Amino acid sequence: MLGGECHQVRLRGADLFVLTGCAEPATSVFATLPAVARVVAGRRAFELCDRELWPGGTVVDVAGVPIGDGGVVLAAGPCAVETATQLDVAATAAAGAGAALLRGGAFKPRSSPYSFQGLGVPALELLAEQRRRTGLRVVTEVLEPEQVGPASALADMLQIGTRSMHNFALLREVGRAGLPVLLKRGMAATVEEWLLAAEYVLAAGNADVVLCERGIRTFEPATRFTLDLAVIPLVKQLSHLPVFVDPSHATGHAHLVPAMTLAAAAAGADGVLLDIHHDPRSARCDGGQALQPGDLTALADALARQLAATGRTVTPAPVPSSLRTG
Amino acid sequence: MLGGECHQVRLRGADLFVLTGCAEPATSVFATLPAVARVVAGRRAFELCDRELWPGGTVVDVAGVPIGDGGVVLAAGPCAVETATQLDVAATAAAGAGAALLRGGAFKPRSSPYSFQGLGVPALELLAEQRRRTGLRVVTEVLEPEQVGPASALADMLQIGTRSMHNFALLREVGRAGLPVLLKRGMAATVEEWLLAAEYVLAAGNADVVLCERGIRTFEPATRFTLDLAVIPLVKQLSHLPVFVDPSHATGHAHLVPAMTLAAAAAGADGVLLDIHHDPRSARCDGGQALQPGDLTALADALARQLAATGRTVTPAPVPSSLRTG
Amino acid sequence: MLGGECHQVRLRGADLFVLTGCAEPATSVFATLPAVARVVAGRRAFELCDRELWPGGTVVDVAGVPIGDGGVVLAAGPCAVETATQLDVAATAAAGAGAALLRGGAFKPRSSPYSFQGLGVPALELLAEQRRRTGLRVVTEVLEPEQVGPASALADMLQIGTRSMHNFALLREVGRAGLPVLLKRGMAATVEEWLLAAEYVLAAGNADVVLCERGIRTFEPATRFTLDLAVIPLVKQLSHLPVFVDPSHATGHAHLVPAMTLAAAAAGADGVLLDIHHDPRSARCDGGQALQPGDLTALADALARQLAATGRTVTPAPVPSSLRTG
Amino acid sequence: MLGGECHQVRLRGADLFVLTGCAEPATSVFATLPAVARVVAGRRAFELCDRELWPGGTVVDVAGVPIGDGGVVLAAGPCAVETATQLDVAATAAAGAGAALLRGGAFKPRSSPYSFQGLGVPALELLAEQRRRTGLRVVTEVLEPEQVGPASALADMLQIGTRSMHNFALLREVGRAGLPVLLKRGMAATVEEWLLAAEYVLAAGNADVVLCERGIRTFEPATRFTLDLAVIPLVKQLSHLPVFVDPSHATGHAHLVPAMTLAAAAAGADGVLLDIHHDPRSARCDGGQALQPGDLTALADALARQLAATGRTVTPAPVPSSLRTG
Repeated sequence: MLGGECHQVRLRGADLFVLTGCAEPATSVFATLPAVARVVAGRRAFELCDRELWPGGTVVDVAGVPIGDGGVVLAAGPCAVETATQLDVAATAAAGAGAALLRGGAFKPRSSPYSFQGLGVPALELLAEQRRRTGLRVVTEVLEPEQVGPASALADMLQIGTRSMHNFALLREVGRAGLPVLLKRGMAATVEEWLLAAEYVLAAGNADVVLCERGIRTFEPATRFTLDLAVIPLVKQLSHLPVFVDPSHATGHAHLVPAMTLAAAAAGADGVLLDIHHDPRSARCDGGQALQPGDLTALADALARQLAATGRTVTPAPVPSSLRTG
Repeated sequence: MLGGECHQVRLRGADLFVLTGCAEPATSVFATLPAVARVVAGRRAFELCDRELWPGGTVVDVAGVPIGDGGVVLAAGPCAVETATQLDVAATAAAGAGAALLRGGAFKPRSSPYSFQGLGVPALELLAEQRRRTGLRVVTEVLEPEQVGPASALADMLQIGTRSMHNFALLREVGRAGLPVLLKRGMAATVEEWLLAAEYVLAAGNADVVLCERGIRTFEPATRFTLDLAVIPLVKQLSHLPVFVDPSHATGHAHLVPAMTLAAAAAGADGVLLDIHHDPRSARCDGGQALQPGDLTALADALARQLAATGRTVTPAPVPSSLRTG
Repeated sequence: MLGGECHQVRLRGADLFVLTGCAEPATSVFATLPAVARVVAGRRAFELCDRELWPGGTVVDVAGVPIGDGGVVLAAGPCAVETATQLDVAATAAAGAGAALLRGGAFKPRSSPYSFQGLGVPALELLAEQRRRTGLRVVTEVLEPEQVGPASALADMLQIGTRSMHNFALLREVGRAGLPVLLKRGMAATVEEWLLAAEYVLAAGNADVVLCERGIRTFEPATRFTLDLAVIPLVKQLSHLPVFVDPSHATGHAHLVPAMTLAAAAAGADGVLLDIHHDPRSARCDGGQALQPGDLTALADALARQLAATGRTVTPAPVPSSLRTG
Repeated sequence: MLGGECHQVRLRGADLFVLTGCAEPATSVFATLPAVARVVAGRRAFELCDRELWPGGTVVDVAGVPIGDGGVVLAAGPCAVETATQLDVAATAAAGAGAALLRGGAFKPRSSPYSFQGLGVPALELLAEQRRRTGLRVVTEVLEPEQVGPASALADMLQIGTRSMHNFALLREVGRAGLPVLLKRGMAATVEEWLLAAEYVLAAGNADVVLCERGIRTFEPATRFTLDLAVIPLVKQLSHLPVFVDPSHATGHAHLVPAMTLAAAAAGADGVLLDIHHDPRSARCDGGQALQPGDLTALADALARQLAATGRTVTPAPVPSSLRTG
């Protein structure tokens, strides 16, 4: 009678009904139903991501690490997991510098079929081992729906990369999987398209999405991509989701990463994703953008000082389970 | 001994070995082996797509329709298959205008989870029915590896859309499936990245790839994308693969499509992909860019006249199987 | 009373009044005045360039060479005038290939202060000499208001380059000078901004403007710029002004120029601007994009054949004054 | 003998000779001459801007306000000077918030010839009056060489806008004028082209150049331009010149300006350029991006707190001359 379509989803313990294509009277009718707690008039293409739905913002819990509560979360690690030793050094450095998350690629999207494609499941196991050892929570990228199962079993957060932002089957799958999702912006995606990609995850029943700005493609050749930091305050106005920044992939140059990390935090980012490698020149993937362990520590210190000026802090890592008693 | 890696693939009845990361002496050693017919010194990131491999160019055979032989192939049809009637009208118009291929979307990639996502397998069956009726060969898009099987059973050519150009699992799957592939350029992909995406398909054992320029994302808002026609002569110099153009999605405006079709053909394109709809305003997807049947006929006539001036022709459709005798 | 502002200008023998910022009733009042021949309701930011003003289109007369009458005008010559001999060879080649206009830079906009900046006024004199010898009409770029006087004295058409499209003082000066203007699109200019730049020239009293698409800046590194041919039909719908295309500067590679010239003509361009040089490797400016004389002849022949198919022709050069009798 | 060319210029009290196009031996020969203090092997297209020339960096003195000494300079004021009252309110707000520079447009570059083009010289006089009253130093844009004289007589720093970055005649003129120059990046300029534009000013004898990032043109429509903050550390590595940021014009939205100001400072910017207006909705130019006086004060306070964490400060304004004794 009312025309349009209705999409139902359960998020944060509430039943939500997204009505699209139905005229104004429909909204009014719904508002009068006793079982309806609230009607939000969506004015944008995305509905479940809209800040009007949850004006207080979303805090995503990554196995004990809160993202979006005002702190700044450091996620550090190698672009690609290469060897047990390489990962061990990186995890030690990340933990030592105060990171809460360990990033590491098991499945790598590579432009060329002849480039190193990642170690796959063995890399997931190495990450899980470092998780046990250091207490760092693990974020790792998935490229295909079939990888979501194995990655969910061993990691704490699933990353959708820039080249997969419009892989709708994958978005639906991580929506169903239930683990928190780190959703990178497509390198040519508008902010609206990015939020609509997040909408796919939420519409599949998963509200634990963290957006991640990682640079967009422009004419400028001096940096690998152009880091678009203005989306931080913009997305926070439009959406209730937290926002990360990846200055490593955005700039492609390690020497630009510290300044962009501090800038991201000053602009209100909820966390940063940092590539580290103990020997960048030998890295099998994106070595030029990796910080060395010592650089990471210096950067974390500078970040902590800057945040202190505004009452913010670097979010601490959870206590390693191996150190917990009882 | 020689370092590097070797990737073996069988294409066009020949065994090819792609050597990467090995130094010059290796190449010389291989050239002296009696079983080695030819050594091509790849100077670019892509190897199997390189024009040096097959300087005469590739002709892709889509169930009897040759692409890349100098003719211009018209592929026309609705952006999305909506109803039997809509498709019937479109197929009749396409056949009447001299198209050889019928395009039609069964699985639609949509920015919003609330937009029409395509009819799925029923649409494939409607396409197959029109194939029997008109003799037009069918090209349709696949979005996920699981769709490759059903689509291969009913269609003649699989399309990889702009949002999937970097879906490597999908590229490998269509590489293994064996059907000809229409590979659209990512909206932010460089020519090199586009050819490397094609390389994934060839490296999986499928040399029947047709590239398709469909507009790149730029700052200009007056058109939906910016159609980059210079890639036609550029790609033909770099690669042996044929090149299509999609002026409908590139411009987003039906009134710009005829001029861009003629321009694409003049620039050397091997075919064009045209959206048609008998009632664009009611289309469930991208109506603004769809030609109406009468426009298509006029355009096909103008194209034929232009091509005649240089001894080229519009590639005819195969005779419908229902009309064949014996 | 009516609010808003009125800008008066005399173009094509008519007095035009551009009213901005005044409400609808004003328009109606004007329409009733006996001295008012016609009221055009501008719906866009540009008024004098709007096709609604002169739906039949503008034909710009460059000293006897019509631009916009359905023919395709070839403008060829060196990017920069270097020596008398170089220009003599180029002018002979241009005339031999059927060009009507000789292009040649006397004042060169160069990114680096240490690059060759053009010969200046002596180059204008060399161009004028070739004009007398060959009958070719001369188009040359001006960079500053002070160059408009000397260039107007010796050339037939003034070019505004891509880097000057927003040099408003220069636009006003060429508007006052009265010579036809070739207005290149800024490399980052939207179509609307480009037409507004033309509006500056018309508003200064000069309706003889030819627009020139020369490529826009995008992320693609394989070509110097991205040639945006869809603007040809787009601009012709929006505006009454003719449109040229510069495939040499757009692509930056001579081997892409012929295909893009044919494409531009097929898309409806009124002319093309082609760089030629007898020894591209020794050129002091942009040698990589220059056609050699033999290439130009072959291209002109191919263009003539393509145009013949649709009843169009390459616009002939005027008879050289030196050959005229009486 | 040595080939190449030599460009001589006097900067910071030293005679500099830029040699271009000459081979390596030449450099060695020069190094042995007794009058030559130092030979710098330029490895980039720009020479006088290269950080290798003055590794300690340049501090530009704007009538007593140092730019580049580690402090952050606030430049605030209206995009366009409209009335004495409007400027008075803005200057009071700027001074009250701790700005050292008053920005205000007398000559406005406008896309449309029918838009407000600025008050011209009367605006310069109003700016000078506020300078006397508040002690704020004045920065104002020049669009044409003829405006350099009048603006130099009344202002302290000349701004080259994004649309004029490639107006080479204007660059040379401000190079000769001697006043400090604020050089905005062209909206489609690469970092190299931007530094080469600065090179024009230095090569004309003026080393007092401050670069200003103001957003580049990309595909993203949600902000007016895309603010490219990574150029701050990049330019500081490549060049000795200080860097400003203009978050107002870059984002086009006042609500994004505070976060981008703090981010710019965190990234190492030497100053920011902020649009303010007491009644943004009535502004004749770019009202949507203007902060109101109260917002500016709050932002300046937040900036001071953030800077204090790293031992930096907001650069104080000079004491107004009207308050000086003696």
